[in-house]
Amino acid sequence: MTNNFKYRIYFEDTDAGGIVYYANYLKFYERARTDFLRSKGISQQQLAIKENLGFVVRRCGIEYISSARLDDEIEVSVVIKEISFTIIKIYQEISIDKKILSTIEVDLVAIDTKKHSPKKISQNLKKLLNV
Amino acid sequence: MTNNFKYRIYFEDTDAGGIVYYANYLKFYERARTDFLRSKGISQQQLAIKENLGFVVRRCGIEYISSARLDDEIEVSVVIKEISFTIIKIYQEISIDKKILSTIEVDLVAIDTKKHSPKKISQNLKKLLNV
Amino acid sequence: MTNNFKYRIYFEDTDAGGIVYYANYLKFYERARTDFLRSKGISQQQLAIKENLGFVVRRCGIEYISSARLDDEIEVSVVIKEISFTIIKIYQEISIDKKILSTIEVDLVAIDTKKHSPKKISQNLKKLLNV
Amino acid sequence: MTNNFKYRIYFEDTDAGGIVYYANYLKFYERARTDFLRSKGISQQQLAIKENLGFVVRRCGIEYISSARLDDEIEVSVVIKEISFTIIKIYQEISIDKKILSTIEVDLVAIDTKKHSPKKISQNLKKLLNV
Repeated sequence: MTNNFKYRIYFEDTDAGGIVYYANYLKFYERARTDFLRSKGISQQQLAIKENLGFVVRRCGIEYISSARLDDEIEVSVVIKEISFTIIKIYQEISIDKKILSTIEVDLVAIDTKKHSPKKISQNLKKLLNV
Repeated sequence: MTNNFKYRIYFEDTDAGGIVYYANYLKFYERARTDFLRSKGISQQQLAIKENLGFVVRRCGIEYISSARLDDEIEVSVVIKEISFTIIKIYQEISIDKKILSTIEVDLVAIDTKKHSPKKISQNLKKLLNV
Repeated sequence: MTNNFKYRIYFEDTDAGGIVYYANYLKFYERARTDFLRSKGISQQQLAIKENLGFVVRRCGIEYISSARLDDEIEVSVVIKEISFTIIKIYQEISIDKKILSTIEVDLVAIDTKKHSPKKISQNLKKLLNV
Repeated sequence: MTNNFKYRIYFEDTDAGGIVYYANYLKFYERARTDFLRSKGISQQQLAIKENLGFVVRRCGIEYISSARLDDEIEVSVVIKEISFTIIKIYQEISIDKKILSTIEVDLVAIDTKKHSPKKISQNLKKLLNV
């Protein structure tokens, strides 16, 4: 199941090359993951406070195919590929009018925010994520 | 007494207009304030841990006179104008080869990082700041 | 006449103090100015291409009253105070549920994007801005 | 041959999790690539102006092993792995005191900045890069 979120490109996102700066695509990917969690009723702040649970990025592989520019409205997808004991594997695309600009494969690790060690993803959370 | 610190402009700092994005000047102003404190042996992390003391910006007035561009090396000055009970007033300039690009007047408030309320600036800290 | 625009706070906007980083408020202020222009049918890209017209910030005065945090939805207002030959004076507020977090007074200068010199603001543009 | 460059972590680089925001590692990786080019006498601005040559990131794979924090001084390495007709493959690490925090494999494509199409990397440029 794919979830899509839309974001606008502003001056802050661009660089002197006239296109969106390469690191800033990761901001949009993360906004979409956060908005995806929010759409499932999951607040990362509440997870941290109530369950000492946070997610950190362990690795990601990004393809840059085409560039977004000032004033563009991009669409960012979120697909959960797999959830194991402590890891969530996600695939995302950034597109404009169905034309793909970039893709990412990202592995998140659930961590105990107090102990800074990996933490089991609960059945309840998996259920909220519809997996 | 003026203290000066140098920073390089990278792609991340620029926008599609080909110049440094206006909000990013505030990053360079803050780097210089942090490096100024560091040069006086003051670590903001240690202040927070040992004295529950932090500084937040209460107001600032910025003039943008000329633009910095990719690859430029800018010089950022720090002058403490006044320290009162809880407030530090600072004046800073960004320049290249003595040509001023921007100035800022910034008021910092000392706060208790636990209580989130204003906190008295200690004599010891004032001494370290040479005021 | 006030125009309001809403934006969400994400991890990218915050800093280790747990609140929105002070320079990032300027990003939200600028998003609102851009969305205000867009709402009036004004595209900054088109202005640059068709009329060689751009706007740069000449000065701004910012008050920081209270802090925005992760997941907050902020509202950013735009009020045009005055338009002279080459300068637009704007007043803006950032608020959450009518509680003001920050205010800014910002002066924009219209410039010729080719000559890099001030440029007269056209009657047509003033009309679109409803001034 | 490895080239190393040092950068300081400031508030702007961190997020509410108290660590450097994951997208910002890409900024440091790019600063090091730019400083590496500069150390070889290569200015990206001059390449763009004189040869219409620019580099864009085509893909990257990033590992996040450990986190950098406020006030840390990180070391970023640059190793050119391979240069083909239009692509430069680079490997980089971010470390503190030889402890690796992150690695990246990044493919840059040389493009004609006017035609926005791939462009052959000249022998002269390869020579400057010591490859």
